Amino acid sequence: MQPIGVFDSGMGGLTVLAALAERLPDESFVYLGDTARLPYGSKSAATVSRYAIQAAQHLHNAQVKLIVIACNTASAVALDELRAAFAPTPVIGVVQPGAAAASAACKPGNARSLGRRGVLVLATESTVRGGAYARAIQARNARLPVYSRACPLLVALAEEGRVDDPVVALILQDYLAGYLSADQSPQTLLLGCTHFPVFRRALERLLPQDVAVVDSASTTAGVVAEHLEQSQQSSADLGATPKPKPTIRFLATDGVERFARVGRTFFGAPVSDVELVDL
Amino acid sequence: MQPIGVFDSGMGGLTVLAALAERLPDESFVYLGDTARLPYGSKSAATVSRYAIQAAQHLHNAQVKLIVIACNTASAVALDELRAAFAPTPVIGVVQPGAAAASAACKPGNARSLGRRGVLVLATESTVRGGAYARAIQARNARLPVYSRACPLLVALAEEGRVDDPVVALILQDYLAGYLSADQSPQTLLLGCTHFPVFRRALERLLPQDVAVVDSASTTAGVVAEHLEQSQQSSADLGATPKPKPTIRFLATDGVERFARVGRTFFGAPVSDVELVDL
Repeated sequence: MQPIGVFDSGMGGLTVLAALAERLPDESFVYLGDTARLPYGSKSAATVSRYAIQAAQHLHNAQVKLIVIACNTASAVALDELRAAFAPTPVIGVVQPGAAAASAACKPGNARSLGRRGVLVLATESTVRGGAYARAIQARNARLPVYSRACPLLVALAEEGRVDDPVVALILQDYLAGYLSADQSPQTLLLGCTHFPVFRRALERLLPQDVAVVDSASTTAGVVAEHLEQSQQSSADLGATPKPKPTIRFLATDGVERFARVGRTFFGAPVSDVELVDL
Repeated sequence: MQPIGVFDSGMGGLTVLAALAERLPDESFVYLGDTARLPYGSKSAATVSRYAIQAAQHLHNAQVKLIVIACNTASAVALDELRAAFAPTPVIGVVQPGAAAASAACKPGNARSLGRRGVLVLATESTVRGGAYARAIQARNARLPVYSRACPLLVALAEEGRVDDPVVALILQDYLAGYLSADQSPQTLLLGCTHFPVFRRALERLLPQDVAVVDSASTTAGVVAEHLEQSQQSSADLGATPKPKPTIRFLATDGVERFARVGRTFFGAPVSDVELVDL
């Protein structure tokens, strides 16, 4: 019963881990947060790729059966490289599932009927610069207008655990300027960074009521579940009785106490026994 | 004519480099910004020490005659370790010079006459946690009340080049809550992070007029100048005519274009030909 490996620059990927654990209750997981080098989103593609390879290598050494890149920045720049490096271990990123969620949340229509009403992607600087989300969404629906906004401060705020805070509201208002009025708002707001779901409520308070706010966590869990079923690697199919109790291990490259303390905000449940590792 | 080596987690140390270059116009400098791993201030002491050793090693390999730790976080946790590792090359940090500047800016007095009116240190989480500033200031003036406030978002804002911004004003107001009214304000506000001098004007707008805002840049330059004179290593003393033209080399571990673009805000002059290095 091999675990599923999940990694992120820090704690944001715990929002994806929570969705995975809920969808796949029989699976074990190893989660790695590269907190010693976060954030990834303000760094160059070459540096992010290098860090992602090292994180995935650590999970690979821990004999995981599948690797989830629970970080939009790393998914956007390093997915192909990681697939090539760790084949035949499957590697699943969050960009395609996020694009699928955003596209599914939009009404069908054409440029004329939709006007500006498409998808607004909030993401890190690096993800926006690479344009991976716009390509992935428009590959599904070429007519959907896609706007992107880099929100670099949100990762720092989230990793600090500052979520319900007047500063957060002001910063969100600043990032959403030009998208808040009824005729300028998108149909769908895509949280294109795994740190951003903690700001969902604050965003919903700011946006017109008809805007759908989506993230990649549950669609990513769906893609992983489907892959395990198709490849007959699902632990739910194991014949053994009694089944081994599934476990979740937490690894971080720095600040394990802080990880346990703040991680709860992202994971939605206690995070304990965080192990310090060096990449 | 060996250069002086200066390093920081990113661009903040350029405020110290500017003061050094102004005070020591005959010296050459090599500046290293560890932008691939910034910020340092939210990370553990062990991780910051490891990064600081690697950065100083790179400068040492470049044959510098003296190393300046232009980062409060690294100065606070790694100064002794760096001195031991690179002796006899002198290593100078910014905490003692910053404490000297803060202490000098305060009126003499005792607990009774001063009340709360001491020094407020704004710094990173790690610097505040370690308490190095409070110890260094009170070693000079045991009666001076010292308060510390961790301002983790300011590094992210500064490295983004967001300086004149309504978000900055709100965040500063939040960090200074409890210190803004005339009877609660400090005598001296010490910018205990080399990133923070870019917010000097915004801070001065918020604080009562009689609060002195000081940083460690010019006092650090003074300490370096004095050390060079005493050890007869000053390039100004070189007999050669014509004197070789002093140079400034910029190295960064990531994002060299961004470093050149945003670095100007910190350095106060153009930053060009930034070289990418790997630690």
